[in-house]
Amino acid sequence: MTKKELINQIKKKKSFLCIGLDTDIKKIPPHLLELEDPVFEFNKQIIDATKDLCVAYKPNIAFYESMGVNGWISLQKTLDYIPNDIFTIADAKRGDIGNTSTMYAKAFLENMNFDSVTVTPYMGADSVTPFLEFKNKWAIVLALTSNKGGLDFQKIECKKGRQLFEQVLETSKQWGTDENMMYVVGATRAVELLEIRSIVPDHFLLVPGIGSQGGILKDVAKYGLNTDCGLLVNSSRGIIYSGNDINFASKAKVEAKKLQQEMAVILSEAGL
Amino acid sequence: MTKKELINQIKKKKSFLCIGLDTDIKKIPPHLLELEDPVFEFNKQIIDATKDLCVAYKPNIAFYESMGVNGWISLQKTLDYIPNDIFTIADAKRGDIGNTSTMYAKAFLENMNFDSVTVTPYMGADSVTPFLEFKNKWAIVLALTSNKGGLDFQKIECKKGRQLFEQVLETSKQWGTDENMMYVVGATRAVELLEIRSIVPDHFLLVPGIGSQGGILKDVAKYGLNTDCGLLVNSSRGIIYSGNDINFASKAKVEAKKLQQEMAVILSEAGL
Repeated sequence: MTKKELINQIKKKKSFLCIGLDTDIKKIPPHLLELEDPVFEFNKQIIDATKDLCVAYKPNIAFYESMGVNGWISLQKTLDYIPNDIFTIADAKRGDIGNTSTMYAKAFLENMNFDSVTVTPYMGADSVTPFLEFKNKWAIVLALTSNKGGLDFQKIECKKGRQLFEQVLETSKQWGTDENMMYVVGATRAVELLEIRSIVPDHFLLVPGIGSQGGILKDVAKYGLNTDCGLLVNSSRGIIYSGNDINFASKAKVEAKKLQQEMAVILSEAGL
Repeated sequence: MTKKELINQIKKKKSFLCIGLDTDIKKIPPHLLELEDPVFEFNKQIIDATKDLCVAYKPNIAFYESMGVNGWISLQKTLDYIPNDIFTIADAKRGDIGNTSTMYAKAFLENMNFDSVTVTPYMGADSVTPFLEFKNKWAIVLALTSNKGGLDFQKIECKKGRQLFEQVLETSKQWGTDENMMYVVGATRAVELLEIRSIVPDHFLLVPGIGSQGGILKDVAKYGLNTDCGLLVNSSRGIIYSGNDINFASKAKVEAKKLQQEMAVILSEAGL
């Protein structure tokens, strides 16, 4: 998907919501467990219920990988089921030396046909650039993450007065463009979005941490919004596990709708 | 595998060689392509030919992941085929927020039953510690990598005069012990092993980059060896792709033997 197409979807749906498909077989409603592929059935119903409210789905690859071959099958079925006009993110946090990153990029962007993959920056340019070589596909590079451990290294002060995550933004933005790179920026530190926007004004930011991780949508929008919107705000558990019975999907829809309506107001106020 | 068992294997085999199973279906001998599972057949013959010369095998997970479901099947068959007294490393460079890292840890250490996984440190403590909660299993944390991009961030000078990779060592060694953590240290910068050993004197170091990436075994040993040996030195392409015909495995054995013999001399000179 191109940047322009993504922006058009945001405007059309009045939403910059990304729904995280962190589908855990131990947490899905028990009645699904009788079915042949409970994980796919869960995702299918979540997608049916929420596809008009969000512009992106983000399967958390660990959850599928932990189920072995069956997990990969459920993942591919899920991906094939997502409508083509919705942006797809393989939340895989991959990255290795060049020839190995090429293999990961092919796995997700070519074979599975995701629109994007999340990528970890620690190994530098040649670990990220292989993900940039696929037309209309994206690398979403970790900058500042919302977990407690994000403080261990990402906020280390480097010389020149910069923190590491700022240096990651500064250096890595030269590897691609705002048409093939985005950044992961944790929403629990919304005020830092201001500093981040000064380094990457035009890039889309994928903001996890709304909902169960404690981020606040209004703050994120206040500091993170740009003239294209420039935000994908993710909620996973807060939406997909809002119910645990036969009505789980309609409960998920209610939660997604709440966020979408907040987003519609934000977009409208910003003239988008 | 425990640290003691690993050290015993090193002494018994007079080897600290790790063989990287970066098995690429486009690079294996053509006669294997007629078989049902060419990747597993290749690995099987490599293992048969080299198992007495090495103490560890390191499948590069990207190569299997890029083949979809079939790749994961080949990987599991390969792992099941490796003798139990050989240390196994899932070279996966995983890492995410706590609950997600737990999923990755289960996938590799429990379901697939690897002895260890390589882990990226960018997301900090809670992205690594879930890998430390499995008895006799290991997290192998990236410190200094041998690729060109390793220079982009790992050698950034932080305040206190430390480089980032040194800070990663200093901080992360507190998360576990030298009985459940190792570090990846690129061999193309062997002289830096001296500095690394001053921070982590007792940890095993996994050193890639011997062979096609240009590292030199003697330098690595000179600066990296400790009283337990403390090194696993990896070669991938330099061994497994040394032949491309029906005799590929015996050619791989020749290359592995050369490294093992160098290692035997090094261990003997060190009184190990």
